[in-house]
Amino acid sequence: MIRKIDHIGIAVRSIEDAVRVFVDALGLGDDGREKLDDRELLTAFLRAGDVHIELLESLSDSTPIAKHLAKRGEGMHHIAFEVDDLDETIRRCEAAGLTVIGGPSEGAKGKRIAFLHPKNTHGVLIELSENTSR
Amino acid sequence: MIRKIDHIGIAVRSIEDAVRVFVDALGLGDDGREKLDDRELLTAFLRAGDVHIELLESLSDSTPIAKHLAKRGEGMHHIAFEVDDLDETIRRCEAAGLTVIGGPSEGAKGKRIAFLHPKNTHGVLIELSENTSR
Repeated sequence: MIRKIDHIGIAVRSIEDAVRVFVDALGLGDDGREKLDDRELLTAFLRAGDVHIELLESLSDSTPIAKHLAKRGEGMHHIAFEVDDLDETIRRCEAAGLTVIGGPSEGAKGKRIAFLHPKNTHGVLIELSENTSR
Repeated sequence: MIRKIDHIGIAVRSIEDAVRVFVDALGLGDDGREKLDDRELLTAFLRAGDVHIELLESLSDSTPIAKHLAKRGEGMHHIAFEVDDLDETIRRCEAAGLTVIGGPSEGAKGKRIAFLHPKNTHGVLIELSENTSR
């Protein structure tokens, strides 16, 4: 049911500062920016093989990313798995006792997404992402 | 210089408990365990496409994983990038002002590895991994 890792989300204070490390120094590919107005986030997608690093910068103090930065500082925020069928995956996860939050809703690049609460996934915020353009 | 993401390391208290979430519920492939005696770690490699999730369980109270668990709890610990040439990558990262720690040394699966300190990689502990069997 999981095809691959779609991306790894990293909370940063400044996307432009982080691009200097991940693109200029480490050599990841830069696949551009996307502003998510309804989520008050700026994102950058960096390419490493067929997985992306998603840099996340908050555009207000009230987003989950701003709260993550205040509580834990910069760093890894979530892992996104690409799934074939989001609704079926949600049903399976709920049946296994996992807690689905924030979805299904629309994420970056027009994908359908939902999250699994880290409280019962060993501290990992997991995004489930269905690529509706396939 | 970076080929791909090799794996994402996740610090857990019990690999067997975490396997129930990541393999049994989410459906990742189970590529087995490896005990790293010199690092006092037990690892499990789970497959998601061509990237692995590396579960890390500490076998003593003095490992970096035990300290991570005590300070931050379970969760994402590091991202490992596969690089063509570890020595050249280390030179480039140091020239860019990044701080190389813990290497070159031998990691899981006999790879040559080093780490970049999270203090100047936006909070992300980065493993650089050269697959010497290529």
